[in-house]
Amino acid sequence: MKTFDVQLGNRSYPIYIGGNLLAQSNLFLDHIPNESVFIISNEKVAPLYLEQVLDSCKRLNCEVKILPDGEQHKTISTIETIYSALLERHCSRDTTLIALGGGVVGDMAGFAAATYQRGINFIQVPTTLLAQVDSSVGGKTGVNHTLGKNMIGSFYQPQCVIADLNTLNTLDDRELSAGIAEIIKYGLIRDLEFFHWLEQNILKLVERDLEALAFAVHRSCENKAFIVAEDELEQSGKRALLNFGHTFGHAIETGMGYGNWLHGEAVAYGMLMAANLSIKQGWLNQQDYARIENLLLVANLPTQAPENMTADDFFCHMSVDKKVRDGKLYLVLLNKIGEAVLTSDFNTALLESTLQECCSA
Amino acid sequence: MKTFDVQLGNRSYPIYIGGNLLAQSNLFLDHIPNESVFIISNEKVAPLYLEQVLDSCKRLNCEVKILPDGEQHKTISTIETIYSALLERHCSRDTTLIALGGGVVGDMAGFAAATYQRGINFIQVPTTLLAQVDSSVGGKTGVNHTLGKNMIGSFYQPQCVIADLNTLNTLDDRELSAGIAEIIKYGLIRDLEFFHWLEQNILKLVERDLEALAFAVHRSCENKAFIVAEDELEQSGKRALLNFGHTFGHAIETGMGYGNWLHGEAVAYGMLMAANLSIKQGWLNQQDYARIENLLLVANLPTQAPENMTADDFFCHMSVDKKVRDGKLYLVLLNKIGEAVLTSDFNTALLESTLQECCSA
Repeated sequence: MKTFDVQLGNRSYPIYIGGNLLAQSNLFLDHIPNESVFIISNEKVAPLYLEQVLDSCKRLNCEVKILPDGEQHKTISTIETIYSALLERHCSRDTTLIALGGGVVGDMAGFAAATYQRGINFIQVPTTLLAQVDSSVGGKTGVNHTLGKNMIGSFYQPQCVIADLNTLNTLDDRELSAGIAEIIKYGLIRDLEFFHWLEQNILKLVERDLEALAFAVHRSCENKAFIVAEDELEQSGKRALLNFGHTFGHAIETGMGYGNWLHGEAVAYGMLMAANLSIKQGWLNQQDYARIENLLLVANLPTQAPENMTADDFFCHMSVDKKVRDGKLYLVLLNKIGEAVLTSDFNTALLESTLQECCSA
Repeated sequence: MKTFDVQLGNRSYPIYIGGNLLAQSNLFLDHIPNESVFIISNEKVAPLYLEQVLDSCKRLNCEVKILPDGEQHKTISTIETIYSALLERHCSRDTTLIALGGGVVGDMAGFAAATYQRGINFIQVPTTLLAQVDSSVGGKTGVNHTLGKNMIGSFYQPQCVIADLNTLNTLDDRELSAGIAEIIKYGLIRDLEFFHWLEQNILKLVERDLEALAFAVHRSCENKAFIVAEDELEQSGKRALLNFGHTFGHAIETGMGYGNWLHGEAVAYGMLMAANLSIKQGWLNQQDYARIENLLLVANLPTQAPENMTADDFFCHMSVDKKVRDGKLYLVLLNKIGEAVLTSDFNTALLESTLQECCSA
């Protein structure tokens, strides 16, 4: 098992990465200050891993809430069912909430923890590759709104993250690839060495080589933890780099209807769109674009826009992005592989041309 | 105008108290970093004061959302209408939200600010006595759940509080009295000198003597700011003292249906119930109880339990209170006037006897 901390002063917390961690009772008990535990999972993950977590917490009073599976359920309505369950079972402020599942479960459980009785403890137990390398780390919680992805939420840090690599065995191929998209992102935005490693080892990840996955999860979490520690609340612009590909990607998720494209798939193609614009700006070269596209192809990630979306659809959804400031849209673009920049200083005509090109391809 | 700060490190903010503050444009502009403003008010307050605020912000881009009036609308559903309005008008993270109204508007606008795009700036402009002396200060935001009062929410501090005493002129008598209840609370829990002042000046408050109101608002805010600075997140037990009368009071509000008793009315009678139990515990003396009851009577506040509630109703609603820890209910009781204590160390049989006695009176 590897352990390291997200450094956030009195909100610091450890990330545990390794095999068979769900069975390590002490990892849970060390971060649960009282007797009351409320586990949130979904109908897909619970049959596979709930028993193990219940067993690790058997000394405590455990309640369970099972959510429906899928991004289309990441809504305020689902959050309300969590509030009701917490209240019906008389859970008080000393309850620790455990998020057992992928990014959707983690985002919602985190938001419920942030807002139930003005904040209770919670533990992230990510069971998808995407959640292990990205969404479980850093305290972003929230839900979608029909008018925009992740528009409702808060920054709220967990007590710890327990990433059990064994849970990746039951992940379907599409979800595995979605996680790989976020892994590739770290290479692109700030870790050239990791990008080189990925070019050499991408097939191992696709084929679920445990050692390669362990390395990739660890390296991704290190990158994420470093950025989060520097800019917890996304104020300086540093944390926004983690959203490379996300402004385009969120437009796809919102435009296509939540749950049709997986988040990682939308981000993958969003990264290509951002790379396309970066070329037009004269920053990225064509050769590097081809390397990115190739990596996505080998990882079975989309390299084409959704058929039904127009350039106008993209414009419309991107105009409500969280990175709009004083009416200006900010985008994360690439200077080169391993170096991203947050900027509003791009040519709008070139953005339009990127959208047109991508949507008509 | 009087100004003083709530001392919370990098989340510190000023409270401005005085007459005709809504017209002082600079008070607003000094705390609005960008061009975009979104004002939340309600159908009762907006016709009276919205124009003045719009005028003070006329250099900026102002959007407005009017909510229905009353505690029964302090729900997640109303919050969702705020989210939708914000998104429909393309409000971004740099929007400053202004809460113009009483405690209900302030609690909801604060919660919307805390959770829209993971947090945007907001300004409290309390227009009721209760909001000026209590709810606008200290960063408690949230909404009710059918199963419990203020069960959903977060701690989220405003950029400033602008308490314009002129707005109290249009307050109806019942709401004025509700505010006086929270003023009396400060005297009871920690400010004996203020309690003495109140015994001598309570009629002036009821008769809306401006000088007396100004003093009472200022002294109340000072008390509140001091406690909040010591225990922002209600962790040490100090902040919980502010909830004197509230556990009983919340039970009344939930039990009677939100909006039937005003919050301040429920708190007033809740304080008497807590005082009743404090006597039974042998802490408070009968004479002091009579002084409290007398003050409430003169302030036209309830000194009798709601007719339709039973002791069992109280028990049921109190068992989900936010001050339950490890299965134990904590209550704020009085050692004497001016000295409150948060404790689970009371005799449950005596609590039962208090509830029986109050409900059969």
